[in-house]
Amino acid sequence: MQLGLVGLGRMGGNMRGRLRSAGHEVIGYDRNPAVSDVASMAELVERLAPPRAVWVMVPAAVTEETIDALAAYLGEGDLVIDGGNSRFSADAPRAERLGKRGIGYMDVGVSGGVWGLENGYALMVGGDDEHVARLAPVFEALKPQGQFGFVHAGPVGAGHYAKMVHNGIEYGLMHAYAEGYELLTASELVTDVPGVIKSWRDGSVVESWLLDLLDRALDDDPELSNLSGYADDTGEGRWTVEEAIRLAVPMNVIAASLFARFASRQEDSPAMKAVAALRQQFGGHPVHKRP
Amino acid sequence: MQLGLVGLGRMGGNMRGRLRSAGHEVIGYDRNPAVSDVASMAELVERLAPPRAVWVMVPAAVTEETIDALAAYLGEGDLVIDGGNSRFSADAPRAERLGKRGIGYMDVGVSGGVWGLENGYALMVGGDDEHVARLAPVFEALKPQGQFGFVHAGPVGAGHYAKMVHNGIEYGLMHAYAEGYELLTASELVTDVPGVIKSWRDGSVVESWLLDLLDRALDDDPELSNLSGYADDTGEGRWTVEEAIRLAVPMNVIAASLFARFASRQEDSPAMKAVAALRQQFGGHPVHKRP
Amino acid sequence: MQLGLVGLGRMGGNMRGRLRSAGHEVIGYDRNPAVSDVASMAELVERLAPPRAVWVMVPAAVTEETIDALAAYLGEGDLVIDGGNSRFSADAPRAERLGKRGIGYMDVGVSGGVWGLENGYALMVGGDDEHVARLAPVFEALKPQGQFGFVHAGPVGAGHYAKMVHNGIEYGLMHAYAEGYELLTASELVTDVPGVIKSWRDGSVVESWLLDLLDRALDDDPELSNLSGYADDTGEGRWTVEEAIRLAVPMNVIAASLFARFASRQEDSPAMKAVAALRQQFGGHPVHKRP
Amino acid sequence: MQLGLVGLGRMGGNMRGRLRSAGHEVIGYDRNPAVSDVASMAELVERLAPPRAVWVMVPAAVTEETIDALAAYLGEGDLVIDGGNSRFSADAPRAERLGKRGIGYMDVGVSGGVWGLENGYALMVGGDDEHVARLAPVFEALKPQGQFGFVHAGPVGAGHYAKMVHNGIEYGLMHAYAEGYELLTASELVTDVPGVIKSWRDGSVVESWLLDLLDRALDDDPELSNLSGYADDTGEGRWTVEEAIRLAVPMNVIAASLFARFASRQEDSPAMKAVAALRQQFGGHPVHKRP
Repeated sequence: MQLGLVGLGRMGGNMRGRLRSAGHEVIGYDRNPAVSDVASMAELVERLAPPRAVWVMVPAAVTEETIDALAAYLGEGDLVIDGGNSRFSADAPRAERLGKRGIGYMDVGVSGGVWGLENGYALMVGGDDEHVARLAPVFEALKPQGQFGFVHAGPVGAGHYAKMVHNGIEYGLMHAYAEGYELLTASELVTDVPGVIKSWRDGSVVESWLLDLLDRALDDDPELSNLSGYADDTGEGRWTVEEAIRLAVPMNVIAASLFARFASRQEDSPAMKAVAALRQQFGGHPVHKRP
Repeated sequence: MQLGLVGLGRMGGNMRGRLRSAGHEVIGYDRNPAVSDVASMAELVERLAPPRAVWVMVPAAVTEETIDALAAYLGEGDLVIDGGNSRFSADAPRAERLGKRGIGYMDVGVSGGVWGLENGYALMVGGDDEHVARLAPVFEALKPQGQFGFVHAGPVGAGHYAKMVHNGIEYGLMHAYAEGYELLTASELVTDVPGVIKSWRDGSVVESWLLDLLDRALDDDPELSNLSGYADDTGEGRWTVEEAIRLAVPMNVIAASLFARFASRQEDSPAMKAVAALRQQFGGHPVHKRP
Repeated sequence: MQLGLVGLGRMGGNMRGRLRSAGHEVIGYDRNPAVSDVASMAELVERLAPPRAVWVMVPAAVTEETIDALAAYLGEGDLVIDGGNSRFSADAPRAERLGKRGIGYMDVGVSGGVWGLENGYALMVGGDDEHVARLAPVFEALKPQGQFGFVHAGPVGAGHYAKMVHNGIEYGLMHAYAEGYELLTASELVTDVPGVIKSWRDGSVVESWLLDLLDRALDDDPELSNLSGYADDTGEGRWTVEEAIRLAVPMNVIAASLFARFASRQEDSPAMKAVAALRQQFGGHPVHKRP
Repeated sequence: MQLGLVGLGRMGGNMRGRLRSAGHEVIGYDRNPAVSDVASMAELVERLAPPRAVWVMVPAAVTEETIDALAAYLGEGDLVIDGGNSRFSADAPRAERLGKRGIGYMDVGVSGGVWGLENGYALMVGGDDEHVARLAPVFEALKPQGQFGFVHAGPVGAGHYAKMVHNGIEYGLMHAYAEGYELLTASELVTDVPGVIKSWRDGSVVESWLLDLLDRALDDDPELSNLSGYADDTGEGRWTVEEAIRLAVPMNVIAASLFARFASRQEDSPAMKAVAALRQQFGGHPVHKRP
């Protein structure tokens, strides 16, 4: 089928490739003319036969304005799919706004990272049944082969919600491996830390794709000595914990993983300064002065 | 090769099966005559040609006494392998004790659970090079096919250490999935929670064997309505956090997973009683009286 | 000075008493005629000489509508003070809305609970200098005697913000005592748990008013056997963690205290069901069936 | 009464002063001749009239050897008091060892830090009733005036146990304040952070001695700009969490406080390196290279 695709970065570019390999006609637009198929969003819409379907795959920070700009060219019967990492709470208002002009809306959480081109992308979809059915050929091409990798999770918003939880879990998984890895490196007994990690890749309870990737990273740099312990976060982890708070769900593990990322980006910790100050006050404990 | 095997429970029994399928001669002893090949530990040792290798696969609580009982029949050149879940700190003293009588000792952390018979077991080995080499055929048969699933992690103790960390990570991974699962069930948006879990099995960053098992459990019981939220712990999780404390390794995620298991087994929480009492004292907040 | 006071519940009623004892003229309105000085909000405003100052002390859930209803009777030069537990983010929009009609606005975080009548209330104030100066006599009467218990924390919103953080800290303090208390009760060594708590009330690093209250609760019920381990939360704890997330501040302790309250209210834990299901799947570990 | 005192550092020196002010005869020994009353431990014992009571107040690391050295000079009917921060588990074996030679043993947890000289020390005592009675005059002099500050917590070991829990709680309290402090400093709304802290010192639910000390520290250095966020830990926090693990007590708050201290001492976090490596692997996310 024919699909418009807005955003041809790391994710969007690969998706265009995978869709074309599956025989779909993809017309892509990106602000970067070097990768764009058309000169403007207007031309993109013009080149698509109505009723159009346009997949938006841009950073969360510019999704709202991108969809608004796009929608100005669209009309009755067209369909917008947000495959980016929007907060789920943005979906229902967006669907309502577009719906007033007869434009459909779906949200799709997309997982798979840079590996998706080859392996396929796990897709979590929120939206109406008719819209899901309409995009079925696209989903079929993007998802991995086999029986998994796709779910119609619920109405508009449910796709981003499922993706948000997915990423929250991802934070927790990564940090569990990370803590175990650190303990191994601290141990006096274990002499082959990368070997231990590698051994778990088959037959162990902790085998996973993330573990494969950790092994891969250790193959390249056995002590991770080229890296700093600094990690950004991209929104979904925060939203997951916010939702846990809203719904009164205990979430110590994922929250701790998120807080560890916050701490990794601090040059110094105001909280620990306060602790040091208190210890000095009551116990006369020595403090470390700033140089 | 010929191997003695003490302990033919869920793990040991399956390992005997897997070893025999690979053509090894296994003589097994268990206190339960229904599964045992020999009538006594003495007979087991008698049936083995020196220098003997005896693999002990019994619950951690009885490993020490089992090895002591076994060692009474063994002598110079024999080799004891502890494949159970001993605390790593027990290994060096044990090796020294046995070593005084010329008996070798290795520790092997074994992962794979009830699935090992078919898939093979991930093996983490601690001990001397010569002992590891001597058992190589046995390791080869037990481990999964393919390039992973085995590591010589270091000297005596390192095998149990690696397995301990493995299980600590396992606690964290399980709880990360569990928190995400709970949030999905609490959400008003996601209408197909088992479907979301299932979709992640391929192409997603969180795919893993544990996720496959969660999906399997939800296939059987989509709301887990037949289960209570009660989970035991079997030692390795506690030891992992104890080691983190000893080595000053921050371990919020795995510790939180462990504490959640503790809490799951409490009928009521003394800590939360204290919180309720305090709220009543300072704010006049209503409390829940015990029935 | 003359002050209108809307809301004469546990907090407002006591504050009226404390203000009157200090010689101020307080006209109070409450929906409950048994405690109200006037029959209606209209009458309240009528009885106050312009420029009026009206302090609103109602539950957070009805603060917005109460202020809107009140403001309908107020005009240029009047001043509204919100002493309730509003989320700080509600303050600036409220101030702007009222400001358009010439009505001033201040937010005051009030701590002290049921003890404030006698001891005075700690006051955290957000607003313009001129408004703070205008209410100075009221603040002077409400706050404890001595040099502490009052701060002009910043512009509109800062009072509620400071109170929010205050309550977040309170969650953490309470839970730290609670965990220590639980460990004492679990110990085989300590035979006089209430005695230990009591001993800390003087000369120890952990002495505090909360500790005094815990001792008091244990005097009444030495094993807290009349209480259930169930604790509500009233908003500020959640907002504190939400703010930590927004501002990338690591907050493991206060978040854990909040999550413990969530868990205390669950009949069963969906997360722990998932953990139990996983353990059964991979290890054949026994599970607890629901009765 | 007459008391021998071994160890005249920050704590022991002040205690000698406080005891002498109360009219007791204290003979102190310290390896540092500048502060010692006698030239050797032998002379100390010689100067005491049997049955002797000797209070040992030395760093935990050297307590065992100090008591052994001291005990060599003591005999039937003498009494040793360990007022240092020994792990409670060392007490029973020590009592048994001394008891074989007729020497009594008590353990006393002492809180109060550098402020104890003036304010008195909170004392948590473990031991036999007769020994507690014998030392009553000493306890009376050391403890704060008033009704609190002393407990006979249980048999030998219970004093150190209570002190251990006290310190574990202290970790949690300090970190709760520290997190709240950090959030205040991060806020755009609160313009007077030290003022907010100071205001809580009276009339608020979070008032405490630790809060007074935090205020004091901020008086000296309003932004704590002379300090690094680096905090040591001295054993009791670790032991508290270890005990929680042994007794299956959930302890997220105190554990998180302990882990934060560990993290404060790391130049870089191996765990966060692993997280960064994973993010790079699956998402192509940029990493921070080490300089």
